[in-house]
Amino acid sequence: MAKQTAANAATKVAILGFGTVGSSVAQLLRGQKFPGIELTHIYNRGVERKRTGATAKGLNSGIVWTENIQDILKSDVDVVIETIGGIDPIEGWLRKALSSGKHVVTANKQLIAYKGAGLAKLARENNRVLVYNAAVAGGVPVIPATLHGLQGDRITRLSGILNGTCNFMLSHMEQGAEYADVLKQAQAAGYAEADPTADVDGYDARAKLCILVRAAMQIGINPDEVPAQTIRNVSAVDFAYAKELGCTVRQIARAELRGGVLRARVAPMLVPKSSPIAWSHGTQNMVVTSGEFGGDVVFSGHGAGGNPTAVAIVSDLLAVVHGSNSVALPVKKKTVTGEFMAPHYLRFIVRDKPGIVSAISGALTKVGANIDSILQRPGYPKDALPFVVTTEPTLTSTVEAAVKAISKMNTMLEAPLCLQMLVDDDRAED
Amino acid sequence: MAKQTAANAATKVAILGFGTVGSSVAQLLRGQKFPGIELTHIYNRGVERKRTGATAKGLNSGIVWTENIQDILKSDVDVVIETIGGIDPIEGWLRKALSSGKHVVTANKQLIAYKGAGLAKLARENNRVLVYNAAVAGGVPVIPATLHGLQGDRITRLSGILNGTCNFMLSHMEQGAEYADVLKQAQAAGYAEADPTADVDGYDARAKLCILVRAAMQIGINPDEVPAQTIRNVSAVDFAYAKELGCTVRQIARAELRGGVLRARVAPMLVPKSSPIAWSHGTQNMVVTSGEFGGDVVFSGHGAGGNPTAVAIVSDLLAVVHGSNSVALPVKKKTVTGEFMAPHYLRFIVRDKPGIVSAISGALTKVGANIDSILQRPGYPKDALPFVVTTEPTLTSTVEAAVKAISKMNTMLEAPLCLQMLVDDDRAED
Repeated sequence: MAKQTAANAATKVAILGFGTVGSSVAQLLRGQKFPGIELTHIYNRGVERKRTGATAKGLNSGIVWTENIQDILKSDVDVVIETIGGIDPIEGWLRKALSSGKHVVTANKQLIAYKGAGLAKLARENNRVLVYNAAVAGGVPVIPATLHGLQGDRITRLSGILNGTCNFMLSHMEQGAEYADVLKQAQAAGYAEADPTADVDGYDARAKLCILVRAAMQIGINPDEVPAQTIRNVSAVDFAYAKELGCTVRQIARAELRGGVLRARVAPMLVPKSSPIAWSHGTQNMVVTSGEFGGDVVFSGHGAGGNPTAVAIVSDLLAVVHGSNSVALPVKKKTVTGEFMAPHYLRFIVRDKPGIVSAISGALTKVGANIDSILQRPGYPKDALPFVVTTEPTLTSTVEAAVKAISKMNTMLEAPLCLQMLVDDDRAED
Repeated sequence: MAKQTAANAATKVAILGFGTVGSSVAQLLRGQKFPGIELTHIYNRGVERKRTGATAKGLNSGIVWTENIQDILKSDVDVVIETIGGIDPIEGWLRKALSSGKHVVTANKQLIAYKGAGLAKLARENNRVLVYNAAVAGGVPVIPATLHGLQGDRITRLSGILNGTCNFMLSHMEQGAEYADVLKQAQAAGYAEADPTADVDGYDARAKLCILVRAAMQIGINPDEVPAQTIRNVSAVDFAYAKELGCTVRQIARAELRGGVLRARVAPMLVPKSSPIAWSHGTQNMVVTSGEFGGDVVFSGHGAGGNPTAVAIVSDLLAVVHGSNSVALPVKKKTVTGEFMAPHYLRFIVRDKPGIVSAISGALTKVGANIDSILQRPGYPKDALPFVVTTEPTLTSTVEAAVKAISKMNTMLEAPLCLQMLVDDDRAED
């Protein structure tokens, strides 16, 4: 296997995709830093522009640059590193790579989240290794840590900040800015795409959550089963109210195994400032795993960017060269729900008139949700008044039923915002 | 190898030592949680007391309990798990285990720090696996994370809280208690030994630091080369002054590679409250690695205790069963020094009289150390007055030369305390 290859001759490596991550990998492999590893092929569309560009500086002149994927798949490279992203046509290419005896290292979270089980099976059948530590939390080695260091535990909960773009935006909104402005700022800084959907609507974090759940909890889930709630309607006023509650707002990906059911959700949530989760600022990622025996373990660091992701990829490559095996996880299926028993934060924008609080509390009482606090900060206009109700731990669907009824009240100027609060005592009842 | 063993029949496991950690491992392995793994032997001195004790409850009645190590070494067990600690006679036993074809999982930090290189070589020669993730930071998988997830980076600095006992003591002293009292408290809680030397004088953290440096930086060092400074003379007054400086005091193990020299030290240090290192309370462990490409990665969790350590051991065992290889690290030798270019905190207890500050600042000026601040809090008795001087970044040996001169002044009531300050700008000059 790979080990013999490494002992006898250099391990030949191809990189698919020469964008930020692919070029960082190439630069990391340059020189004699990792003896026994030779970058021989680079694939990219319009490859000539890449070959002559600044990011190719200093690379070995013997490298084959190609825009024909067959040049890679039919070559004698030992390891294919994929940094392009997306499912189609990548899945087919990587299947061919594995079938033709190549190991695969990939940073592709959507591919692994949706198609990882099948690819892993194909890799085992071909006695090849498929590794994807770069797909979750970039430079934070949470996948190798859970695979190699926490399999002896039973992880029952995990929560994390898995999307650096949202964390950048929300930690800037914490300083008082509005959503539209921080989105522009994030786009200008290169953190957010022109179409920010995958980040702000939670699909990126959701794919990573599913990969993490598989590695840490050995539960296979389809990302489409996990509710993802957008951060688009979080507003500066929510940070003001969150602060009064000792909290901030972050996009959280969380999963919890209880009573044979996997609860999983990606959403903006209120996070206590005292929680490790709130330590994370800017584009940092963070994951907290909770094990039945080992307790909480916290991981944090740079979740994205060319160099941190390249470190994860090259570490995977070294693992392949050192003869690492793909661990065949004993993955189980579980029923998945986005429901959590948690306190909820409800923010309303109303045209103020008598009786509103009574109507809202009535709607909550009707579904059995107990109000924990009602907050109305001074200084807002009466004709567009934001105010907040928090509930005692209640199932998300129960709260949402009440919110649906409340949203029909004619004093409501916009749809109410309903956020879970990520607190430690959310396990009170079930 | 192990993989074939697992495929054909159960992997047979022996545990050496049935104390807190060993019995937790046995309990974790109980039942069918980890199919294909069978605990067959337990070794302990005075084993009968253990066999009939509470911690043996529910274990398989077929287990061989023995106080004769030969019963293990001559058995057909596949994996020996060692939880006894110390170098002699354990080194000899584990060498025999490896030579006779057994894989070894150990939590023994002193053994691995002093003898790990030789044992790893013997393991490779015998095509066996030696794993020791439990030896550093217990339940925090920092060794697997660095071995499998950060080898692609160049780690140039790391710092951590690696001794839960000292962290428990110092985080309690932060609340105002004195050393002697928190030591008693730690002993009563079972965190500190009757003889606390290994913990409070830094030898425990030092062994872990050396293992971590080897895994993360691929540098082999003898623990005896690393200065270890005791926490015994840290006093409540130091926490009061540290607070004025925006800091707290923690036992820090740190290493930094610069200009071909490895700087390494275990000592109580002033840590800014804003640093991740200060997040760690109670018996928690924390490690921050700084990579040239991936930046800072933070790991934290329970560093000790039966269950977290058992999780690390069982995770290692699973890695062995899954056919993991011992990674042969390309370990280099480096010159080691305990010197850091850092601001220093100097605390003096003096019989107050005119001219003391001038004499102290004179001694510092003489060696070329610039004073950054002088602090004298009100409310202390004039005949035993504590006051503090902090320096700009200066080499530790330079400051210590001045402190040596100052300690001879006849107004000094006790030896001055000299602590490094762990700040981010300590890389200003060299």
